[in-house]
Amino acid sequence: MLVVMDHRASEEDVEAVVQTIEEMGYEPEPIPGRQRTAIGVVGNDGYVDEDPFVALDGVREVIHVSRPYKQVSREWRPEETVIELPNGATIGGEGVTIMAGPCSVESEEQILEAARRVKRAGATVLRGGAFKPRTSPYSFQGLGEPGLELLARAREETGLAIVTEALDPSGVELVARYTDIIQIGARNMQNYSLLRAAGSAGKPVMLKRGISATLREWLLAAEYLLNEGESRVILCERGVRNFDDHARYLLDLTAVPSAKQETHLPVIADPSHGTGDRKKVPPMARAAVAAGADGLLVEVHPDPPHALSDGAQSLTPDRFDELMEELEAIAASIDRHLTPAVREAVEAAG
Amino acid sequence: MLVVMDHRASEEDVEAVVQTIEEMGYEPEPIPGRQRTAIGVVGNDGYVDEDPFVALDGVREVIHVSRPYKQVSREWRPEETVIELPNGATIGGEGVTIMAGPCSVESEEQILEAARRVKRAGATVLRGGAFKPRTSPYSFQGLGEPGLELLARAREETGLAIVTEALDPSGVELVARYTDIIQIGARNMQNYSLLRAAGSAGKPVMLKRGISATLREWLLAAEYLLNEGESRVILCERGVRNFDDHARYLLDLTAVPSAKQETHLPVIADPSHGTGDRKKVPPMARAAVAAGADGLLVEVHPDPPHALSDGAQSLTPDRFDELMEELEAIAASIDRHLTPAVREAVEAAG
Amino acid sequence: MLVVMDHRASEEDVEAVVQTIEEMGYEPEPIPGRQRTAIGVVGNDGYVDEDPFVALDGVREVIHVSRPYKQVSREWRPEETVIELPNGATIGGEGVTIMAGPCSVESEEQILEAARRVKRAGATVLRGGAFKPRTSPYSFQGLGEPGLELLARAREETGLAIVTEALDPSGVELVARYTDIIQIGARNMQNYSLLRAAGSAGKPVMLKRGISATLREWLLAAEYLLNEGESRVILCERGVRNFDDHARYLLDLTAVPSAKQETHLPVIADPSHGTGDRKKVPPMARAAVAAGADGLLVEVHPDPPHALSDGAQSLTPDRFDELMEELEAIAASIDRHLTPAVREAVEAAG
Amino acid sequence: MLVVMDHRASEEDVEAVVQTIEEMGYEPEPIPGRQRTAIGVVGNDGYVDEDPFVALDGVREVIHVSRPYKQVSREWRPEETVIELPNGATIGGEGVTIMAGPCSVESEEQILEAARRVKRAGATVLRGGAFKPRTSPYSFQGLGEPGLELLARAREETGLAIVTEALDPSGVELVARYTDIIQIGARNMQNYSLLRAAGSAGKPVMLKRGISATLREWLLAAEYLLNEGESRVILCERGVRNFDDHARYLLDLTAVPSAKQETHLPVIADPSHGTGDRKKVPPMARAAVAAGADGLLVEVHPDPPHALSDGAQSLTPDRFDELMEELEAIAASIDRHLTPAVREAVEAAG
Repeated sequence: MLVVMDHRASEEDVEAVVQTIEEMGYEPEPIPGRQRTAIGVVGNDGYVDEDPFVALDGVREVIHVSRPYKQVSREWRPEETVIELPNGATIGGEGVTIMAGPCSVESEEQILEAARRVKRAGATVLRGGAFKPRTSPYSFQGLGEPGLELLARAREETGLAIVTEALDPSGVELVARYTDIIQIGARNMQNYSLLRAAGSAGKPVMLKRGISATLREWLLAAEYLLNEGESRVILCERGVRNFDDHARYLLDLTAVPSAKQETHLPVIADPSHGTGDRKKVPPMARAAVAAGADGLLVEVHPDPPHALSDGAQSLTPDRFDELMEELEAIAASIDRHLTPAVREAVEAAG
Repeated sequence: MLVVMDHRASEEDVEAVVQTIEEMGYEPEPIPGRQRTAIGVVGNDGYVDEDPFVALDGVREVIHVSRPYKQVSREWRPEETVIELPNGATIGGEGVTIMAGPCSVESEEQILEAARRVKRAGATVLRGGAFKPRTSPYSFQGLGEPGLELLARAREETGLAIVTEALDPSGVELVARYTDIIQIGARNMQNYSLLRAAGSAGKPVMLKRGISATLREWLLAAEYLLNEGESRVILCERGVRNFDDHARYLLDLTAVPSAKQETHLPVIADPSHGTGDRKKVPPMARAAVAAGADGLLVEVHPDPPHALSDGAQSLTPDRFDELMEELEAIAASIDRHLTPAVREAVEAAG
Repeated sequence: MLVVMDHRASEEDVEAVVQTIEEMGYEPEPIPGRQRTAIGVVGNDGYVDEDPFVALDGVREVIHVSRPYKQVSREWRPEETVIELPNGATIGGEGVTIMAGPCSVESEEQILEAARRVKRAGATVLRGGAFKPRTSPYSFQGLGEPGLELLARAREETGLAIVTEALDPSGVELVARYTDIIQIGARNMQNYSLLRAAGSAGKPVMLKRGISATLREWLLAAEYLLNEGESRVILCERGVRNFDDHARYLLDLTAVPSAKQETHLPVIADPSHGTGDRKKVPPMARAAVAAGADGLLVEVHPDPPHALSDGAQSLTPDRFDELMEELEAIAASIDRHLTPAVREAVEAAG
Repeated sequence: MLVVMDHRASEEDVEAVVQTIEEMGYEPEPIPGRQRTAIGVVGNDGYVDEDPFVALDGVREVIHVSRPYKQVSREWRPEETVIELPNGATIGGEGVTIMAGPCSVESEEQILEAARRVKRAGATVLRGGAFKPRTSPYSFQGLGEPGLELLARAREETGLAIVTEALDPSGVELVARYTDIIQIGARNMQNYSLLRAAGSAGKPVMLKRGISATLREWLLAAEYLLNEGESRVILCERGVRNFDDHARYLLDLTAVPSAKQETHLPVIADPSHGTGDRKKVPPMARAAVAAGADGLLVEVHPDPPHALSDGAQSLTPDRFDELMEELEAIAASIDRHLTPAVREAVEAAG
């Protein structure tokens, strides 16, 4: 850490900073400059809290050299995390994992039809919401537990693993009983009570990036999960808020290489929420794989115009079939492949 | 609502939209144009869900004419909501309500000293966090219930009302037992389980704007509270995320007149979190009152350099005294005044 | 266009809007609603100016149904624009055009070495700045006309076409004497005097998107060029401003499919400025092609650590060679190819 | 400056940084840490170019301690710049300078009526555009030189000083012949050719902040002006781009105290462009003065509904009269006053 003093700071101001550093058990290393003095903090094992310094007189700014997160960082664990699911599919490493399905579970017929189609096309994980966070209190909020049961039936029939969202600490236990991966939605990325519950539920967690979260905040939210003992965490980029409305959100694909540089956790992308427009889902799905994403979360609905939510951004199963072929070729161009595990797993089971 | 068709839309596409409108029980009103057709939706009482339309072929965009929120809107209730607190202070209407105190409750001495000083300067509500949402799992997370007890002691001694934050549905009941106003923090603005719990706890709720929430999303979050039966809701602008780092957040003071135009609820501002820098708190506090805010939430700490959180943005009690005089004069310039109720109430009680 | 009235608007207010529409020669089409009235404007050939309406009493908002741009739109010209360069290379259509080279022209040796290497790898256009817009007046501002002469020598030797930036109206004529494509930089996207000069210089123009320009503003800036008679316009996405600093800018690749949906002009991407970090250039270059970009603008420097500008985001020629192979495979996966024209052209010329 | 190394950086990488620092004539000061090494740069007089470092292997980031601007900074010149206009009005210091008038000069009658009214209300500078930068090539672009002549007539009659915009280097000379202050618009903040021309025209310059310019970029743009010899520069905050559309731009009033902390130049605000809505102009004008702005730029039009541009954000003269009274009281609350100079100057002249 570096404490930068104002050019008008007095010697007493500098001395107060030096003392504070020493009180914290670190070693101060003043770096005098022609314009101003800066004081380095040496001897710290990791991130040092800036709060005691910013309130001191004469301090202009505090600059961090260390990162504030630990267990999620590549410095803590250089090799990539690879998560194994009960159906044999993996997330992380060489494979590219495709998770697909409808926004909401609506009926047995709908979820089974979706599951069959996405599995046939090569997906290994089925997505589908039973509890839906909605901006308006008057919108459809999901089927609740019956939706979870339908997901479990789809898993039985197809061998797909399941990812579905939990909305609050008390719901985590229920969701964890059914799902293979607990999803934390973008609105809840900094809902720390929920993170603590999810991190101790014994299931892998997929953490969506908040719509205006920095990479640093996203990784710190993941740190809450690892700090509770759950190391099987998947990061999911799903678009950030921006000034333009040419798309619903601005899918930040550069966050994929940026995050993978900082962390050992797998990073996937959601081009469906990230664009909000089914015409833009295929190009951005391809772009995400080309940028190095470890997987995708794609909305596929047997009948988009009659979807109860997100119909505008759902692909038809036919369009999804085509997309999967394109993705296979793009993955190959960078020496990767779509994870095939589930197919074998299911065949073996069959 | 207006459904705008693509210029290449076929007659069948237009017909499908017309049918969908009719199936929903509304009346379609096609408006043919030289470049494209648009179809108005007539007969709706309020907001119409756009989902069934955006997924249809040939639909370019759906434009809403109605607002998606109801009970929070001025169209629903034209007269301003004025909230009365147990100590006689009010929020909304002609008065400008000052809420002040430390970021976190740290000790009996600290909170009592803060309470005495802000009361003497003219504040009517004491702020102080017992449960703190922190970006890093390694930061100080608040004293918990003992912090609530200390707040209650400060209230007893000074007659100030209390505002403090609840972090999750299960914590709402506990917080509500102690506080006069339940605070919902910016990170939790779209934590719907928390909103539902807070809206049915029987206490006024202060809802902070999310750091990248639009005015529309903020009002919809408030709608969750009113929908649970709690009409005593205060909106608090606290800065939004932006591209520049000259301040920690960008305090969006235009949101004050914008929100007051749309809603009957009182709107206050938090210049402390909104700037993150105690040197910028006084100018932005003055600006908020000049812009028409119904109150302020200001961090004041007896000893900012030793604060356990947010020291950098806390005013000393002396600086707060000066600020209150400036605010009084600014309120007067637009025919308003700082709410004096608590002083009288306490004197009467004494 | 739709003029939406406030719910408190009087009949006189509505009448004033109706009259204004008639005075402008259009036909008003009132759409009464339960909550408020909206008045459609029918009979207009294109975009209607909203200014006369927004200042009227009782008007809540004006909603545009038509697009404000004409000649750049697909509605005006459905088939894609394909630009042919003197060396036989094309931009637009099936091919993917790679433009590469250093940020600034620094010396004969540097530009010739860069040109030879990018040509050998398969690029068809050489980039290089002779006039550099710099945030600080104390930074290197480019070689000026001698830089243009060096670019011309590199073209002679390699057969590559040239793209280089013009900074002001008086510089356009000079730049146009040397270059094959005039570049308009992001900072100048709304420098209308420059756009008018560039649009009448008789050379194709590459228009970079401003760092906070909406798609609509970008297309309107291009409209200035077409309005001056120059229809050979290339749009270049180069990253937008955002709240996070994990990358220098946020490369908005969704703007590629969004723009191509609206306009017939070719759309390329600049992953070098868009990320500011050479480690992120290859993944984002691949992603851009996967998203459907018609080309790339990539910084390549023979010796990045000694570059006079933008060394941090420049690829070495060796890394560029590898990238080109990845790009070839990705283009093939969506039935496209890297434009090969220049190689043949030069061989023919040789 | 501080060069922070990656934790995997080798000793050779560190050595290369040390050598580069020495080659530049500075002194390296390595600060070894447990996680990584950082190398301070000592002995520099000001800002050091980061380009030679960021491209070196093993460098994680470069952190600047000095500011990149010089002449605009308070460190260079601690006392505030006060600009005197020919009519005796001043900008900067204790006074608050009100500049008002229509967006565009439309006719003799219009500009004279506006000038008389804003002068009577207490403004000292008349604003009005003769050359208008417009997003669409099909919008009204201003009267040109005849507009400048009308402004000069209004000055003769009222004694108001004039501020009007120049769009390109060749237009600066013409505008400078007529105006008292040359305005550089937001779109042109980084049009360096224009800045150089304006900085050497011998007239004070008002530099609007670009809609997504950081404070640092804004001050560097001002540095171009001072670097050409013009020290009479006024900064004008006019709203930045944001994700919400509740107002046209997000007026960043915190930029007022932030800028005044960094620079000795006067800082004013434009609540008209900053909100785009005449109902929000008075609250935000008051807020700007309360936040410490040295002046305001306000659009006032004798007949807003018939304005050729920006009618929606123009105040009527009557509303402006009221606003001026509110502003007088707010200025007084912080020991400031509206600059009265022009009234006396004109009386003296009469």
